[in-house]
Amino acid sequence: MDTQDQDFSTEGSYVTGSEYTRDTNYIETRITRDGADGYPVEPGRYRLVVARACPWAHRSTIVRRLLGLEDAISIGVCGPTHDARSWTFDLDPGGVDPVLGIERLQDAYFKRTPNYPRGITVPAVVDVPSGAVVTNNFPQITLDFSTEWGVFHREGAPALYPEALREEIDTVNKRVFTEVNNGVYRCGFAGSQEAYDAAYDRLFTALDWLEGRLATQRYLVGDTITEADVRLFTTLVRFDAVYHGHFKCNRNKLVEMPALWAYARDLYQTPGFGDTVNFEQIKKHYYVVHEDLNPTQIVPKGPDTSGWLTPHGREVLGGRPFGDGTAPTRDVDA
Amino acid sequence: MDTQDQDFSTEGSYVTGSEYTRDTNYIETRITRDGADGYPVEPGRYRLVVARACPWAHRSTIVRRLLGLEDAISIGVCGPTHDARSWTFDLDPGGVDPVLGIERLQDAYFKRTPNYPRGITVPAVVDVPSGAVVTNNFPQITLDFSTEWGVFHREGAPALYPEALREEIDTVNKRVFTEVNNGVYRCGFAGSQEAYDAAYDRLFTALDWLEGRLATQRYLVGDTITEADVRLFTTLVRFDAVYHGHFKCNRNKLVEMPALWAYARDLYQTPGFGDTVNFEQIKKHYYVVHEDLNPTQIVPKGPDTSGWLTPHGREVLGGRPFGDGTAPTRDVDA
Repeated sequence: MDTQDQDFSTEGSYVTGSEYTRDTNYIETRITRDGADGYPVEPGRYRLVVARACPWAHRSTIVRRLLGLEDAISIGVCGPTHDARSWTFDLDPGGVDPVLGIERLQDAYFKRTPNYPRGITVPAVVDVPSGAVVTNNFPQITLDFSTEWGVFHREGAPALYPEALREEIDTVNKRVFTEVNNGVYRCGFAGSQEAYDAAYDRLFTALDWLEGRLATQRYLVGDTITEADVRLFTTLVRFDAVYHGHFKCNRNKLVEMPALWAYARDLYQTPGFGDTVNFEQIKKHYYVVHEDLNPTQIVPKGPDTSGWLTPHGREVLGGRPFGDGTAPTRDVDA
Repeated sequence: MDTQDQDFSTEGSYVTGSEYTRDTNYIETRITRDGADGYPVEPGRYRLVVARACPWAHRSTIVRRLLGLEDAISIGVCGPTHDARSWTFDLDPGGVDPVLGIERLQDAYFKRTPNYPRGITVPAVVDVPSGAVVTNNFPQITLDFSTEWGVFHREGAPALYPEALREEIDTVNKRVFTEVNNGVYRCGFAGSQEAYDAAYDRLFTALDWLEGRLATQRYLVGDTITEADVRLFTTLVRFDAVYHGHFKCNRNKLVEMPALWAYARDLYQTPGFGDTVNFEQIKKHYYVVHEDLNPTQIVPKGPDTSGWLTPHGREVLGGRPFGDGTAPTRDVDA
């Protein structure tokens, strides 16, 4: 199997030997208070481009909503499928993003770097005046939302990356990224039975670790939601819908891991999490775009997602979702 | 998707329009006490050829074992995978069935009909002296094991097709065949999204019916195991391992349907059922042979099958697995 062409261009990944490897070279320009990279924090200037389907982009939509950055940073939404070259704005009237005036996200990448050679990925933050991508460095985007855009946070915004917990959050995030967020892709895009078998073992070793950790504490780090929970959630919410079957991550479903499943439901039912999930777009993306894994491109009707709204019982573990803050109350489509 | 070539030859099926249709034309010759079709019941004369992977063949291995026909009817076992032309005896030393002396099952079909034009399917009952297939008509094979081979049944053999219950068994079997046994294939081999969506709804409508029926009674018909349980079991035991992911029968896993899952475990733990199951061969068959659905041919490591041996609690519903008879006690490899 060769997923290089398809995935390098739209998901930033490739296969080395038989093991799947994610291309982690991103445009590392940052938007900061001091504008050190030439892009200062400035409300209304930047547009966050995402796809509801994509777990890496999903992080940014959750954090933007939790922090109440809707007025400061606008959002453009690509459709769930794309061709080998680019995500597109096919959900918008006329197939054109109303702010950027482009049909294909690659146009914003090419404004930044003609013939940009790496993956045309979401999330991407675009400088509206120039129409050029500022950054697609997703691990930094959400952290900067927390640390650089503080003055534009809503009243009651939670501290998702508090200084006192950063070291622990970073440690957890690192393991969650390599073993879980990326671990499911390592299973799905394995180039051999042996690479798949090893990837499967790595993934479920990590999930067992998380199951144990979350059996006695409500959130991953500290007693409130943090960046660590955001990053784990975006994989968990896709697990039974896509990764279990499509990527063969099938030792068990998420619903068969009691602590993780209750934890995921707890977050899902927290404003900012479940209300940014679109299961239809998630399924359509993976099952249609990965034609090399699913040649029929038929999208499963299942799983039944009604369980996400059932009581989770996690309150007994204590914890305060928003700490001293409050839940977001704005309309989710802002 | 066109599964016609591949499946017509080895699974006896084809696609009409976008809906999957099973070719139900089999060699209908019967082995009977009166020998009306030229093949009288005679111990040692016939060889049952199966594959552990195949649900249609699986019925015959369960019934043969439950009835204790091991000495009367020998068994040949094909490997889990096959090419477009035929199942093969690749598990046997030298790749040759030690009784029939052939490498490929199609040789026995050709002995019966040169250039046999339909699917080379298992189960097949072969007349050892001539080396020719007598019948591959699987729905009749197991019924004849019960009704024609009675004199060779073991002491304590259960009545799997008792006269008083035949009408009800036939009615249940008919619905289970069209909606469940074949229903999972209708999902997996659907030629369009619309055909798949319709197939999925049909399948889960039937599973919900069974879930309700089995919530209050231990077995499908009457209060002992019958042919009806055998036929449902072979699909249920493959459900989470194959049909859920590979065929996109994914509203839920079997383990998420409490009555059906307990019922399946009850049977699995009954001698003759679980001891004829080979999960590795089941998974390898579907994921390797159906290259049009799974181009990588990677076989999932999951699901965890340890749950099959957990207590099922169905004893409270009453019922006597073997009625006035007893469980088989012979070695399972006979």
